[in-house]
Amino acid sequence: MIVVMKLGSPEAEITRISEDFKHRGLTPEKIVGQHRVVLGLVGDTASFDPLQLQEISPWIEQVLRVEQPFKRASREFRHGEPSEVTVPTPNGAVTFGEQHPLVLVAGPCSVENEEMIVETAQRVKAAGAQFLRGGAYKPRTSPYAFQGHGESALGLLAAAREASGLGIITEVMDTADVEKVAEVADVLQVGARNMQNFSLLKKVGAQEKPILLKRGMSATIDEWLMAAEYILAAGNSRVILCERGIRTFDRRYTRNTLDLSVLPVLRSLTHLPIMIDPSHGTGWAEYVPAMAKAALAAGTDSLMMEVHPHPAKALSDGPQALTPELFEHLVKEMAPIAESTGRRQQQTMAIA
Amino acid sequence: MIVVMKLGSPEAEITRISEDFKHRGLTPEKIVGQHRVVLGLVGDTASFDPLQLQEISPWIEQVLRVEQPFKRASREFRHGEPSEVTVPTPNGAVTFGEQHPLVLVAGPCSVENEEMIVETAQRVKAAGAQFLRGGAYKPRTSPYAFQGHGESALGLLAAAREASGLGIITEVMDTADVEKVAEVADVLQVGARNMQNFSLLKKVGAQEKPILLKRGMSATIDEWLMAAEYILAAGNSRVILCERGIRTFDRRYTRNTLDLSVLPVLRSLTHLPIMIDPSHGTGWAEYVPAMAKAALAAGTDSLMMEVHPHPAKALSDGPQALTPELFEHLVKEMAPIAESTGRRQQQTMAIA
Amino acid sequence: MIVVMKLGSPEAEITRISEDFKHRGLTPEKIVGQHRVVLGLVGDTASFDPLQLQEISPWIEQVLRVEQPFKRASREFRHGEPSEVTVPTPNGAVTFGEQHPLVLVAGPCSVENEEMIVETAQRVKAAGAQFLRGGAYKPRTSPYAFQGHGESALGLLAAAREASGLGIITEVMDTADVEKVAEVADVLQVGARNMQNFSLLKKVGAQEKPILLKRGMSATIDEWLMAAEYILAAGNSRVILCERGIRTFDRRYTRNTLDLSVLPVLRSLTHLPIMIDPSHGTGWAEYVPAMAKAALAAGTDSLMMEVHPHPAKALSDGPQALTPELFEHLVKEMAPIAESTGRRQQQTMAIA
Amino acid sequence: MIVVMKLGSPEAEITRISEDFKHRGLTPEKIVGQHRVVLGLVGDTASFDPLQLQEISPWIEQVLRVEQPFKRASREFRHGEPSEVTVPTPNGAVTFGEQHPLVLVAGPCSVENEEMIVETAQRVKAAGAQFLRGGAYKPRTSPYAFQGHGESALGLLAAAREASGLGIITEVMDTADVEKVAEVADVLQVGARNMQNFSLLKKVGAQEKPILLKRGMSATIDEWLMAAEYILAAGNSRVILCERGIRTFDRRYTRNTLDLSVLPVLRSLTHLPIMIDPSHGTGWAEYVPAMAKAALAAGTDSLMMEVHPHPAKALSDGPQALTPELFEHLVKEMAPIAESTGRRQQQTMAIA
Repeated sequence: MIVVMKLGSPEAEITRISEDFKHRGLTPEKIVGQHRVVLGLVGDTASFDPLQLQEISPWIEQVLRVEQPFKRASREFRHGEPSEVTVPTPNGAVTFGEQHPLVLVAGPCSVENEEMIVETAQRVKAAGAQFLRGGAYKPRTSPYAFQGHGESALGLLAAAREASGLGIITEVMDTADVEKVAEVADVLQVGARNMQNFSLLKKVGAQEKPILLKRGMSATIDEWLMAAEYILAAGNSRVILCERGIRTFDRRYTRNTLDLSVLPVLRSLTHLPIMIDPSHGTGWAEYVPAMAKAALAAGTDSLMMEVHPHPAKALSDGPQALTPELFEHLVKEMAPIAESTGRRQQQTMAIA
Repeated sequence: MIVVMKLGSPEAEITRISEDFKHRGLTPEKIVGQHRVVLGLVGDTASFDPLQLQEISPWIEQVLRVEQPFKRASREFRHGEPSEVTVPTPNGAVTFGEQHPLVLVAGPCSVENEEMIVETAQRVKAAGAQFLRGGAYKPRTSPYAFQGHGESALGLLAAAREASGLGIITEVMDTADVEKVAEVADVLQVGARNMQNFSLLKKVGAQEKPILLKRGMSATIDEWLMAAEYILAAGNSRVILCERGIRTFDRRYTRNTLDLSVLPVLRSLTHLPIMIDPSHGTGWAEYVPAMAKAALAAGTDSLMMEVHPHPAKALSDGPQALTPELFEHLVKEMAPIAESTGRRQQQTMAIA
Repeated sequence: MIVVMKLGSPEAEITRISEDFKHRGLTPEKIVGQHRVVLGLVGDTASFDPLQLQEISPWIEQVLRVEQPFKRASREFRHGEPSEVTVPTPNGAVTFGEQHPLVLVAGPCSVENEEMIVETAQRVKAAGAQFLRGGAYKPRTSPYAFQGHGESALGLLAAAREASGLGIITEVMDTADVEKVAEVADVLQVGARNMQNFSLLKKVGAQEKPILLKRGMSATIDEWLMAAEYILAAGNSRVILCERGIRTFDRRYTRNTLDLSVLPVLRSLTHLPIMIDPSHGTGWAEYVPAMAKAALAAGTDSLMMEVHPHPAKALSDGPQALTPELFEHLVKEMAPIAESTGRRQQQTMAIA
Repeated sequence: MIVVMKLGSPEAEITRISEDFKHRGLTPEKIVGQHRVVLGLVGDTASFDPLQLQEISPWIEQVLRVEQPFKRASREFRHGEPSEVTVPTPNGAVTFGEQHPLVLVAGPCSVENEEMIVETAQRVKAAGAQFLRGGAYKPRTSPYAFQGHGESALGLLAAAREASGLGIITEVMDTADVEKVAEVADVLQVGARNMQNFSLLKKVGAQEKPILLKRGMSATIDEWLMAAEYILAAGNSRVILCERGIRTFDRRYTRNTLDLSVLPVLRSLTHLPIMIDPSHGTGWAEYVPAMAKAALAAGTDSLMMEVHPHPAKALSDGPQALTPELFEHLVKEMAPIAESTGRRQQQTMAIA
């Protein structure tokens, strides 16, 4: 870390601060500039908070971190090698990772009833998906909106899993529900609104199912990776990062702004696999195909898309859901892009 | 609500949609414009989600809500009258509200040990505060940073309450901790990162202590009021709204951008009392006095400020903490502004 | 337009307002809702400003526009047909448009000297570009930074044009320079910082060269199309829209956030051709290839990329410039994606 | 400046880079950390662009600026002393500055006709204003909206000046108009949309009238001060900074988010006087009084407010204009706050 002193900092204070750093196990090296003094801190700085160090003296102008704040999530932690998250499903193990075929996750916003969830599962499986998504517990802006069928929907997801062989990805919103959800889900989703629900992160980090960690709507890349770090630090090494659009000044035509630049950026920072969700990322089904193809061309490991047999009758988020027909058509359109980027789709697709 | 049809919508589809609305208990009134058809929906639209209605037909371009999405939180719900939140404290009942004196909440970011929390309580009480703030459970970006002393800190807060007579405001982060925290706290705080932790909102709405609801860092005014609506709808009518800075494009000199325009805006939208937190709002103690005075001049009902006996040694957020001396000085400087805005400070201040 | 009246608006005021609208040539249709009255305005509303109409009465809560504010830029203006911008270059005419091959624009941030600009032109032409970009006048945040060689650089661009046969795209920043720049440039660029420099928009709209209009860094889609409307309304129908990244809360790893969702969104709103600039959009050369491919997969008509023979020695924006070798490699990698999206690259590429 | 090298940077490259810096007149000091090497650069770094230095080697991870990028605008440039901008007006000289009484600027968005501008001038003067604002040239989002009366309005402003004795502040949008506007205006305004119109900044910096520089709607504090630096560097030392609201994710209830924290932040960074514009900052007249008082309590040197004799008939921006009566009432309400902050209003107010 780099400690920048204010103009005119007294020499005695700089000495005092240097001593303080030494007591904390850091070695300060002083650079006397034309106007200012700067201290370079050598040592295990990763466990220090720059703001905390700033408190040491009012003469400190700023403390700049040179190392990344995340450790286990960093690419360096695996010496530059990407990690893989392999998930057993009835249809066989599926692996999310940079050197593996594209993984497709599809399904409705919420689980409405057995018929629709089983039908959707079968349709998206036929089109090439490896996982079924579907919400049992739904985060809704309004307390008066449909909140999901909760526990009873978990049973329906289990039925859809059995009928289709697909793996199940579903969201958990409350520490009290983690075990219950983990019994059914193959991957537990932590939603955007809970990305910094640290109690939940610790809890899902302490169980064994892989975690899909969605980016908070105004989370920086660093905050997102630090949220992943919570899970990794709690003992669960199987984390998939999912970009689902961020909040910007323009929400007239899209609900969020899908930030596809996370693909090359995350590649250089972390070893974790990456998923893109163009459905939430845009909010409108008609914009999903263009953004799904873009994500694929930019190198995503996985795509999550909302598919509903009758979007007009969906209990939530209908406008962003593709029909099974459109999903199937899109999967076919994506094949040559997957091919051209050297990443064919999963074999199950070829079968379908 | 207003339903805007796309250019060239077929007459038969408009008829079909109108029938659909009638089945939902709404009365559609058709306006045939020069280019488009628009349907005005009359009836109890508050329980409908515009996006949900949009799903009814691909010919619908947009659904615009005319009524506010919140009901119980709206100013109309109380026929234009502000609500009051009265909290019993050892020193007597304190009321938060538009027609009541300014309420001052002060204390450290986190409860570090008994001595510091009791000392801080006594100092801020002497300077004029009615409530002590202090974190037992701390939301921290990094899993490696100090996470608060948790349950044991609750006991220290109780001791500080007894020693000073101040009411206690402290954060709850996990549904599993609500009861425990509610035993000690006079007001439960839901933090910015949990503003849309709907499980937590429902849980705190189902108990009896008043709730301080901080604005999420990228929450719109509507989303914030809908979060309050969750608490109100669950049965707890005592909610205080706290602005603590929003996230914008410039974070070089302030951690957040304190949005003081919420003061006149919320006044016109809601009956709930309002608090401003200039400590998190700016992130730096040196900017707190100017923003505290500004909030007061703009009409806030309450102020929350971080005060620490030794900011340089604070375990978290030291840079934004005032010393007790600076806090005392600020309270004195604010007095004439409070006077001029027709809102004297609480009587306890005069005593101090 | 839809006029929403406040709760409790007096009947007499509604009548008065209705009369006022009639005098303005609009036909108001009244919808009496459960709580509010709403007026639907029928007629040629496009020339009215919603805020202006709102001024008519303090009882008006809001005025919602149903029609788009842009006319000439709208897709409807051309009955759903895309427009084409054909530019004569020494190598032949090049057409920007939805149904035409991808157009590649490449070159340095600024024109540094004759040797480098001619060399770059020849290298990017060989790799498949149709246009050379290069700044003579440079908008720089600091007055102490290199400001471009100005008028003398225009001569160097002319030399590069002659040597390579490429068309020239260069920025104009001052109304006083429009004629001078238009003598050399085949396409005039209006930069992001000048997107709402309305004097400049009117001036470039009144001359004959096509305009490349970059999106302002916090411009909404509507504002961007209204800026295009200024040029179109001034008589120049040849406008190309260029997305170059918007400003968001996270600028740690990318200078801007490249908003690729403009591709499907603009397609549905406007007939104008679209260009994407992944160099400014990310700010770092290493992120350019992924985003260029993504833009192509999402359907862009054109790409602009910074290429410099020696990025390390560039006088401005070196970190985002590709070397000619990397550019050539990227063009090859993009070919199958262009193919798969049914949009082969310009024939000049095949020759190269 | 601090140069952070990438992990594993070769020793030879670090040596090469150090030599390069020496050739540029900088003295590099090497700090060898646990994982990385960092170079501290000593010397006159202010004229170097960090991004430019980054180009020197692909092994450089980032270049962090320790010094501020602005010089003449910095507080240090005047050794901590605030600067004053004194403007002669028919009623006498008025000084903008930290140690001077509050300056009030009021008037309509645009100059509509002689009667209204003269009446407004007399009314706001009577209420306590020292300057009349009013647009001759108007930046409007739509080419079809009223664009201001241009040159003929300048004559009307001169008439209002003569009739009221107020100084005149009006916007200039085009380098071609600077001289014409400077003949009439006592202070030239550069609007938010032109804050980075560098041609205009240079031009107004080269003439003698003081400049009111509005903050761009997504300009960082650093960019804003660098825009001021353009004017200062061109020779004009009389610059006033005006905050008028920034663009954020929530624009439902306010047009912009007024960032009052600029008051304490700018005080610590720059010597330049500060003005706050709560009219554009909120967009609604009903929110102006609260924010004007807040700005005053937070220490502003000056306030700009829109006042129109008949807001409902205004040709532009009516919803944010106060009536003369409301303005007069507000000025009276502000007096005790001005008093309490040790900054009485200008003497002309007392007279009125």
